[in-house]
Amino acid sequence: MKKAVVLLSGGIDSTTTMAIARSEGYELYALSIDYGQRHILELEKASQVAKYFNVKRHIVARVDLREIGGSALTSDIDVPKDRTQKNIAHGIPVTYVPARNTIFLAIALSWAEAIDADTIFIGANVLDYSGYPDCRPEYIRAFEDMANLATKKGVEGLTKFKIKTPLINMTKAEIIRKGAQFGIDYSMTHSCYDPRENGAACGRCDSCLLRRKGFSEAGMEDPLKYAL
Amino acid sequence: MKKAVVLLSGGIDSTTTMAIARSEGYELYALSIDYGQRHILELEKASQVAKYFNVKRHIVARVDLREIGGSALTSDIDVPKDRTQKNIAHGIPVTYVPARNTIFLAIALSWAEAIDADTIFIGANVLDYSGYPDCRPEYIRAFEDMANLATKKGVEGLTKFKIKTPLINMTKAEIIRKGAQFGIDYSMTHSCYDPRENGAACGRCDSCLLRRKGFSEAGMEDPLKYAL
Repeated sequence: MKKAVVLLSGGIDSTTTMAIARSEGYELYALSIDYGQRHILELEKASQVAKYFNVKRHIVARVDLREIGGSALTSDIDVPKDRTQKNIAHGIPVTYVPARNTIFLAIALSWAEAIDADTIFIGANVLDYSGYPDCRPEYIRAFEDMANLATKKGVEGLTKFKIKTPLINMTKAEIIRKGAQFGIDYSMTHSCYDPRENGAACGRCDSCLLRRKGFSEAGMEDPLKYAL
Repeated sequence: MKKAVVLLSGGIDSTTTMAIARSEGYELYALSIDYGQRHILELEKASQVAKYFNVKRHIVARVDLREIGGSALTSDIDVPKDRTQKNIAHGIPVTYVPARNTIFLAIALSWAEAIDADTIFIGANVLDYSGYPDCRPEYIRAFEDMANLATKKGVEGLTKFKIKTPLINMTKAEIIRKGAQFGIDYSMTHSCYDPRENGAACGRCDSCLLRRKGFSEAGMEDPLKYAL
């Protein structure tokens, strides 16, 4: 059975990506990253999702980016709230974590090479997203090229590493509908950048706003509890 | 003053790279990585080297690669000993850590972007080395291309990230001579993959053999204590 490493944050995108990877016949190795994010709740959700998909293995790699800082998700910078669609669509916000997806994909690549997997799935997406540079197709292709020069198996021609991004050109509504076709119960997922202590989503950060818009456009009810 | 992140393991190569970066006028930000390596002693040496160069800041980022495994440096696989030069020069050995330099450079890139540095130094080297794919110039160039697509500052055109590898085409003897010109006392460095409990270098792993050959060819005495 062919193996894939799937980056799993426990949000809508990575959970839907898990379903797609499984439907393509891969044995699933789920990788979550504890990088000191303020929304650490997402790691509990990731564990639930990994159990739901009965993955072969789920590991949580720790790499503390708080010491590096530079982002509202890892330092004391406030998470922006109540931004309009227009604002969300333009510019790169302070929730951008410097080189985050490069760190995540590098760890995924290491694990993929160690377990003889040639495919890495990541739920990156350029529509209905916050403008992060490391979610764009040109970045993903550049990482893939680099990966095949970086690794023993790539260089020896034993493996051609592929980074699969099945959601990259889908709207949030399309992603949610796709997941629903696979029977995903999105109550096990989590999206908020700045959840309350009781776990309730803030309802006002970019991630909550994009999620709510997605469910609304998909004509479905969001099972998540919001503080507002 | 222009800033640079310098990857610092506390070995000969990264220590010499620090001296070169300083001579080029950079303010130094030293980055060491605790990845669960069996030669954890190198992190103590890295701290000594960072103090010696009076760096602006030294951080030790933790990312545990033991759970990923796949290498003699992070798992129970034995470190090869007493290999001939011919064997060292051919093939990629079990001390290769899957995608290690990609993980290191990704963390360095994150820190560089967070502190407004545009340059990352790494002591990668393709002569007198163990054949690791992620030390070759074509890999370094691919990482650099990727880095400028991955980051907010790269994409916004505010920064063009550069990965500098001043040692890449130097022999170990040339590196040691270069460092001596800068007055480096190599007794503060460490190279062994498999040091004894008392800290003595094994004298027989690839890294010890390449170090000894380098000092011998440079016509200098190695200040390190070896068990054999």
